[in-house]
Amino acid sequence: MQRLSTRDGDFAAKFAAVVDDRRESASDVASAVSAILADVRARGDAVLAELTAKFDGHELDTTGWQVSAEDCKAAFDALDPDLRAALELAASRIRAYHAAQLPENRDYTDEAGVRLGAVWHAVDAAGLYVPGGRAAYPSSLLMNAIPAKVAGVGRLVVVTPTPKGEVNPLVLAAAHLAGVDEVWRVGGAHAVGALAYGTGRIAPVDVVTGPGNAWVAEAKRQLYGVVGIDMVAGPSEILVIADGANDPAHIAADLLSQAEHDPTSQSILITDDAAFADAVAGAVEDELARLATEPTARTSWNDNGVIIEVASFDEAPALANRLAAEHVEIATEDPQAIFAKIRHAGSVFLGRMTPEAVGDYVAGPNHVLPTGRRARFSSGLSVLDFMKRTSFIQLDEAALEAVGPAAVALARAEGLPAHARSISIRLEK
Amino acid sequence: MQRLSTRDGDFAAKFAAVVDDRRESASDVASAVSAILADVRARGDAVLAELTAKFDGHELDTTGWQVSAEDCKAAFDALDPDLRAALELAASRIRAYHAAQLPENRDYTDEAGVRLGAVWHAVDAAGLYVPGGRAAYPSSLLMNAIPAKVAGVGRLVVVTPTPKGEVNPLVLAAAHLAGVDEVWRVGGAHAVGALAYGTGRIAPVDVVTGPGNAWVAEAKRQLYGVVGIDMVAGPSEILVIADGANDPAHIAADLLSQAEHDPTSQSILITDDAAFADAVAGAVEDELARLATEPTARTSWNDNGVIIEVASFDEAPALANRLAAEHVEIATEDPQAIFAKIRHAGSVFLGRMTPEAVGDYVAGPNHVLPTGRRARFSSGLSVLDFMKRTSFIQLDEAALEAVGPAAVALARAEGLPAHARSISIRLEK
Repeated sequence: MQRLSTRDGDFAAKFAAVVDDRRESASDVASAVSAILADVRARGDAVLAELTAKFDGHELDTTGWQVSAEDCKAAFDALDPDLRAALELAASRIRAYHAAQLPENRDYTDEAGVRLGAVWHAVDAAGLYVPGGRAAYPSSLLMNAIPAKVAGVGRLVVVTPTPKGEVNPLVLAAAHLAGVDEVWRVGGAHAVGALAYGTGRIAPVDVVTGPGNAWVAEAKRQLYGVVGIDMVAGPSEILVIADGANDPAHIAADLLSQAEHDPTSQSILITDDAAFADAVAGAVEDELARLATEPTARTSWNDNGVIIEVASFDEAPALANRLAAEHVEIATEDPQAIFAKIRHAGSVFLGRMTPEAVGDYVAGPNHVLPTGRRARFSSGLSVLDFMKRTSFIQLDEAALEAVGPAAVALARAEGLPAHARSISIRLEK
Repeated sequence: MQRLSTRDGDFAAKFAAVVDDRRESASDVASAVSAILADVRARGDAVLAELTAKFDGHELDTTGWQVSAEDCKAAFDALDPDLRAALELAASRIRAYHAAQLPENRDYTDEAGVRLGAVWHAVDAAGLYVPGGRAAYPSSLLMNAIPAKVAGVGRLVVVTPTPKGEVNPLVLAAAHLAGVDEVWRVGGAHAVGALAYGTGRIAPVDVVTGPGNAWVAEAKRQLYGVVGIDMVAGPSEILVIADGANDPAHIAADLLSQAEHDPTSQSILITDDAAFADAVAGAVEDELARLATEPTARTSWNDNGVIIEVASFDEAPALANRLAAEHVEIATEDPQAIFAKIRHAGSVFLGRMTPEAVGDYVAGPNHVLPTGRRARFSSGLSVLDFMKRTSFIQLDEAALEAVGPAAVALARAEGLPAHARSISIRLEK
């Protein structure tokens, strides 16, 4: 963890180093992934079977290619009642928030007599990658699947590796709850290729979302344009802006809630109170000592943690906008005053009683958010990632007479006579 | 041009071949582009000067790195009055249509007492690639620049190659009209790298849009994630659905308006009238004979043109949805009836007096549209490409008591104890 202060002479340089630190490993899997995708495109299911045997250690023909809807329902029914109620609360709140995102169609006629508008449609089919093992989070399945279903996607397909054939009951339960239509026991770059190109067994989809390792991320990147994808994701991060009136243990817990994700995660505190900064640093050590995820959290905090002391919170929005963090907590007396000046952030958590983790599960907004300063130009996952807009126009003769000649002039100036002709031929009497 | 009929026994296979024909050259420039981008990142302006000398044949230090605002204004003032009026009509109609796209912020408190919402902000800076030479279209500049400015982008930067130092006055005039802030005389993959990474002279931007050759497209693809980009674009295409009541010459002109773009462009006619199909095929030949762009248009029509005869227009929407074309014209008695069943299209042109070219210039909707069947999952350019959404939540103690325990249960089930702790510590009395 490093301590900075805006009062220090070298603050600008040190802060710039924090901003520029990507923390993303430049894993060189591009050519290997490219070969796998070409192979899946050419040989389909045979490649899936071979690579599943190789990487996951089971034979799909024996263990089964799909998890049935019945098995997903059985996993849901077998949940501990409290956990089932928690998943149901999360699903219903996520559904309500995303339903309000549904865009409206437009259809109007302007003063020139031109009918104009746009209609939104869901994609026909979406694929959702769900990692196997430690990072197989039911909350993540809900956050990806529910917006797709709210958007109106007819066919929602999950691919997930099942190492040694073992499934994750929580993930299956979430798939049942979210209304997933198909669950295939394949993972890795080849599973993403199967979703994009289709195979004998798996029909192709139009959009692929969901988290994954470097191979999965690279496969999505290479298939961008063949299918739509969500943003390429990097390590998680949180920026906490907190004054001295907070309980240091609360803020320490918030910082560690990101640090426990991965050694490359980053937690940053901005405060205007040096004594509070010391207290939080101490509380982090206390909290770490009791944490089951201590090794990961400690590495993240030691390597990437930052405490920045500001002379005044007036300095905070500019720093926050430079960082453009995935998560921003504002635990001050008047959080709205700072929030109003923040332009670049994935999601913002306002006030002393809004720990970021509430947003990970049950608040309603999506927890799939831009990382690595990408909040400068991209947004969290939404129903719009599963929909697309078709614009339309309709002219009658009078409208074409009104605006057509200008189009003819422009087409001729651009050296496109057939464009001009398609209009002028209709204006000839 | 090939003629198909849904009555033919081999129609399904032949139509599938049309659908699967990508027409996009798999140019292998990835490694060359990757090297250029790394070089720009490392050496900045020096690389721009070297590659501009090499590819565009002029020295930036002599010809000047930028085109001044005064020069853009002078180009605008020097326009032929009719052309200036046409550009102004186009700009004002594009501005009006895109202003209506501006998204609304949300801010509400639900029954659990959770404050929820989302705020939209423009990106700070956007870069627009404008090709040099033949494909330097002022209309394209307007279609990219105006949505950015309507979105609220503070700094809008154009990069454009000026071969032998020669600028395109129409493009400069459009840049003036659209309110572009900077015009740099650099093109190619290195110009895209300069926009994304920044150089000594050019400050980095957050989003890069605009058309370009294979090198530019590959640079954008590789930089996706460093900056936001618009969709990777392929050859233009039009699907015309027309009945026998149309003037065959009108429909022939519409088909050729796409064919003249590029030899790889595609024009497809669907009609329920065999005699009309013959008449259009004949009219295409007549129109070609008088067209200055005849060589390009003829190659496109010969190589990629398709006429599909259907038994009934009831068959048309399913075919149109398979093709998911960039442009769809519906020139029938009741175009709305067919349009209502079309789910996948970039933009739709309704009725006999709505040639697609009107939409290229003055109708208002964007002419940057998904090609190559990407309308299945993506949309035309809009103000949203230059904006991003920040979600937010705010809980008080009662709200955290209402929804927090469910989040604690889920966090524990996912093996994330610090997530759970950040909530439970606030619920301890």
